[in-house]
Amino acid sequence: MLNEIEKRQSIRKYKNKMVENEKIEILLRAAMNAPSARNTQEWKFIVITQKKALSDITKLSPYTQFVKSAPCAILVIADLNKAINKEYGMINCSAAIENMLIEAVHQGLGTCWCGIAPNEDRIVGFQRNFNLKDFEYPVGLVAIGYSDQEKPLSDYFRSEVVRYIKEDE
Amino acid sequence: MLNEIEKRQSIRKYKNKMVENEKIEILLRAAMNAPSARNTQEWKFIVITQKKALSDITKLSPYTQFVKSAPCAILVIADLNKAINKEYGMINCSAAIENMLIEAVHQGLGTCWCGIAPNEDRIVGFQRNFNLKDFEYPVGLVAIGYSDQEKPLSDYFRSEVVRYIKEDE
Repeated sequence: MLNEIEKRQSIRKYKNKMVENEKIEILLRAAMNAPSARNTQEWKFIVITQKKALSDITKLSPYTQFVKSAPCAILVIADLNKAINKEYGMINCSAAIENMLIEAVHQGLGTCWCGIAPNEDRIVGFQRNFNLKDFEYPVGLVAIGYSDQEKPLSDYFRSEVVRYIKEDE
Repeated sequence: MLNEIEKRQSIRKYKNKMVENEKIEILLRAAMNAPSARNTQEWKFIVITQKKALSDITKLSPYTQFVKSAPCAILVIADLNKAINKEYGMINCSAAIENMLIEAVHQGLGTCWCGIAPNEDRIVGFQRNFNLKDFEYPVGLVAIGYSDQEKPLSDYFRSEVVRYIKEDE
């Protein structure tokens, strides 16, 4: 299995070290090269490295306290003017986010995906805080930095959730 | 950027060659090692290699004619008994699907992600066809095989969908 998929973990403690601009651009490029249904590419990104803005995020969602000590976070938004609908916005942006998480491992970075949609309080909070328009639908926030955390790797494979429809059935 | 992310494309024409069981298991392992909010891991998978079952899929969704000539397809289902809600089911299963697509490139395979949710007709069609329970919510179908198609690579990076909130603002 691809090393980057195997090693991806949710990292909530980061070294006091900035993420290089080049690496942030590569993460965005990975995100934008995700597939989207009917090639709508409705994703938009806000790259947040300002300390105050990172700290303000902790007020918008209950499990984001650690974000204030992250050097960077990227807010991923679905542009509902381009999306087929809200649900496809979530689906396509989730593929983009997953690409970002995998690419981050490749770049030696740790990440944590913080859910926003479909929680209405969080959506409204992020929309207000970042002056988003009504059609700008925040799907998730990805905290990014150099990991300062050692976690054992897990393998979540479970054969019992797989069914097979084969030729000989 | 990770080679596998850069090279992923939607492939709709496959060689007449089976996908090895070992490779299918690696794809499932990649999928199950995606992150899920609150670690719900609500995904379930149906691996379809039976010709009739692959052919039947073409009646369930309008853009799936090519699936009948694919050697394999994996249906990804959210178990709503485990999911926080339907939307999180879509989000988490989308991350799992994206891992599968990336891993497939690593295994030398081509894939095409066919959307199901939130389209009600397709959901009901797949539920009936595969005898799913009400709480088994089909999110997407991934066709898999050895590519028999040459497509130029595209880079969908667009700087205009990125906003920055930096320290000096």
